[in-house]
Amino acid sequence: MTAATDPVKLSKQEVGKAAAALVQSGSIVGLGTGSTTAYAIEFIGDRLKSGELKDIVGVPTSFQAEVLAKQYGIPLTTLDAIDHIDIAIDGADEVDPQKNLIKGGGAAHTREKVVDYLASRFIVVVDGGKLVDRLGSVFPVPVEVIPMAVTPVTLALKKLGGKPELRMGVKKAGPVITDQGNMVIDVKFDTIDDPENIEKILNNIPGVLENGIFVNCADVVLVGEVKDGQPVVREL
Amino acid sequence: MTAATDPVKLSKQEVGKAAAALVQSGSIVGLGTGSTTAYAIEFIGDRLKSGELKDIVGVPTSFQAEVLAKQYGIPLTTLDAIDHIDIAIDGADEVDPQKNLIKGGGAAHTREKVVDYLASRFIVVVDGGKLVDRLGSVFPVPVEVIPMAVTPVTLALKKLGGKPELRMGVKKAGPVITDQGNMVIDVKFDTIDDPENIEKILNNIPGVLENGIFVNCADVVLVGEVKDGQPVVREL
Amino acid sequence: MTAATDPVKLSKQEVGKAAAALVQSGSIVGLGTGSTTAYAIEFIGDRLKSGELKDIVGVPTSFQAEVLAKQYGIPLTTLDAIDHIDIAIDGADEVDPQKNLIKGGGAAHTREKVVDYLASRFIVVVDGGKLVDRLGSVFPVPVEVIPMAVTPVTLALKKLGGKPELRMGVKKAGPVITDQGNMVIDVKFDTIDDPENIEKILNNIPGVLENGIFVNCADVVLVGEVKDGQPVVREL
Amino acid sequence: MTAATDPVKLSKQEVGKAAAALVQSGSIVGLGTGSTTAYAIEFIGDRLKSGELKDIVGVPTSFQAEVLAKQYGIPLTTLDAIDHIDIAIDGADEVDPQKNLIKGGGAAHTREKVVDYLASRFIVVVDGGKLVDRLGSVFPVPVEVIPMAVTPVTLALKKLGGKPELRMGVKKAGPVITDQGNMVIDVKFDTIDDPENIEKILNNIPGVLENGIFVNCADVVLVGEVKDGQPVVREL
Repeated sequence: MTAATDPVKLSKQEVGKAAAALVQSGSIVGLGTGSTTAYAIEFIGDRLKSGELKDIVGVPTSFQAEVLAKQYGIPLTTLDAIDHIDIAIDGADEVDPQKNLIKGGGAAHTREKVVDYLASRFIVVVDGGKLVDRLGSVFPVPVEVIPMAVTPVTLALKKLGGKPELRMGVKKAGPVITDQGNMVIDVKFDTIDDPENIEKILNNIPGVLENGIFVNCADVVLVGEVKDGQPVVREL
Repeated sequence: MTAATDPVKLSKQEVGKAAAALVQSGSIVGLGTGSTTAYAIEFIGDRLKSGELKDIVGVPTSFQAEVLAKQYGIPLTTLDAIDHIDIAIDGADEVDPQKNLIKGGGAAHTREKVVDYLASRFIVVVDGGKLVDRLGSVFPVPVEVIPMAVTPVTLALKKLGGKPELRMGVKKAGPVITDQGNMVIDVKFDTIDDPENIEKILNNIPGVLENGIFVNCADVVLVGEVKDGQPVVREL
Repeated sequence: MTAATDPVKLSKQEVGKAAAALVQSGSIVGLGTGSTTAYAIEFIGDRLKSGELKDIVGVPTSFQAEVLAKQYGIPLTTLDAIDHIDIAIDGADEVDPQKNLIKGGGAAHTREKVVDYLASRFIVVVDGGKLVDRLGSVFPVPVEVIPMAVTPVTLALKKLGGKPELRMGVKKAGPVITDQGNMVIDVKFDTIDDPENIEKILNNIPGVLENGIFVNCADVVLVGEVKDGQPVVREL
Repeated sequence: MTAATDPVKLSKQEVGKAAAALVQSGSIVGLGTGSTTAYAIEFIGDRLKSGELKDIVGVPTSFQAEVLAKQYGIPLTTLDAIDHIDIAIDGADEVDPQKNLIKGGGAAHTREKVVDYLASRFIVVVDGGKLVDRLGSVFPVPVEVIPMAVTPVTLALKKLGGKPELRMGVKKAGPVITDQGNMVIDVKFDTIDDPENIEKILNNIPGVLENGIFVNCADVVLVGEVKDGQPVVREL
């Protein structure tokens, strides 16, 4: 692996390395999605290769994670073959001071939620730009919806005070389709005062599979930043 | 339509007729699934044909409802084309005294939930055998789950005190697959003390799409019974 | 509708208008996808509004076509409700002199194929840049594949001499997912000498749903071009 | 494993054992679906446990195969992780003298086709009742179809001279849904004179994923029969 010289990239690498260092031999490891998590997967692979780490098995949250894990030599399993996950490493689109998250920019939040909530320890890796005082400040909440329910769910989201927008594809005509065959409504709220409550309310709208709010899930948040031109990692 | 002579069948017909009588001209009508609802669809068709009813458009909750509606001449629309439903008619597997329901014996409860919750008035049609003192007495709760999450959801349902069982197919090898491409876990609870709460808890398990508990949804429950060899309809 | 002043846009409008003019009252019309087809849908709507056209019902090939048809007031139906299509209008990514097509840049070619092959008359609308001497000169052939078969189908495509590439998403992590929940492999062949044969060979690879080669399907190809700064429409 | 005493069951066991005996150490093994194949999976597990067989990895064609393989201790992989299959063992609904097959009674024929066609050696295990002089004598051909295309494909199958019937569910309302989220049309032909041709024609109907005719695929057919009250296995 070539060392990056761009400080932002360097700080992502450092966060990935810090997260990879938390994985212990004999663990079942949830492998998340995104550019910072990709470095974590790479470093787990390095530790396996060097013999520092042994008996690891990964549970990918996405196609991307699966491809990277294979590339870096991490053996994989599926959720059918295990009854727990020891540690999961994943990114986020927004993190508030209580370690609540918004995820789903990659439309993979449903599988990520299944894996991350199952983990005894969930490590979030982000760059400093993802930290917000209040959830929903910048990023809309992605809501995965079965196709036949897009219109009634859109109406329900408006009634809740949100501004819903169906996510459209770029390399396909029409809406983005998730790995589960569903659609994604990105809904912007002015403020999200009670994320725990809104997470449940959204999931109870008929036709909604999962939404991108993750509450009481993250155990550790590792933040990569650049200070005085140098990459630093701090724990939130 | 030939008159049935079997009293049970007669009572189903009478309930279907009573529900069909509640539909008013100019309505958008949710059309449910099941043998009693099938009679309601037939009688709505009769009323349309006779001219007693006008300007009806139906929203089917299932393939079965769609086929029957076409057979009996009810024009159909989809949820994309409307912003409300005036009245919905649907069956149930269990009904408690507070009009809470368990549905999903036909694995169609997700689409039914989308349609039934959208309706200003939701009419439930059942025979007397579906009435229970407490929800879950006889029938397990069907939970629709994305395939990759079947094992973790099964574990979560056991932790909640349930006895989960993956529903297996008869005319296909392996599990029943829903119209959305998901699987169904039927979970038996000893008692369901707080259906409103358990409905939400189930929906918040990552990987769960919808469950078969319907709380605060039914407005009218019409019960078909046989008294002294005669079919009678009463409102719960 | 505002008249465009950009000659390329003007020529697309003119082609769309020419195609819309071929639709006769009382027809079932297949409505395709893409920027030129969008003009055809708009002009069909104009003709309906003016009363020049009557009793039209549209069958959309995609979400985009459905949204546009609603916007321009074209009543819609589904394939379940009809037994033929009188005329279909759709775009293409490549057209050869025998009116063979490559479609699927929008990953919608499976639904398009179902609709377009059902039509008694299939009108293709393209700009001059889509004309090629030989199919596959510029554009790869999109092949829709079920997710579990991506690797064996990729191997099979290589054995056929193609260069297959899994289409990746932009607004979602990982591969593009089609409206049917499948993936798309774009396969570039050096030359496609016998499109009719290769269309069948591709469809017979286990795990392939449909490919983007359309042979013996187009009846009329309308080409929009700019000559001396003026938009012109010619039939191929 | 308890020895069966019912001669039919005994003969299924003997066929399963004969197929399992063909598996060599170090092989990638396709694991099929059905009651006879289940015995083969069990005997492969027995051979692994006894140490007679080593370094086997299985590729399941269905949920049933996956569950059985785990139960009998066969390590599993997925098609993404391999580039060939050494041997596959699977059942069939009909076998003709040229070793052509009809499969799909369990609606699993698409995944079975992907796996079985990939295998260097495909072993079919059946009881004598599955042998026919001519394909289609008893069993209809299952055709997997995307839901939006059910009506046009039904029309196309009638034009080909078939009697198509949509397969309906038992433990779900409406049609059987496959593991891929599609529907199955069972089409009965009076005679199937040229299975190789009809297999291709069916796959080229727009909206068809795969059909249950397997031509030029089976290498060995093992038939279990009862002769003089004794189970015997013969090769076709």
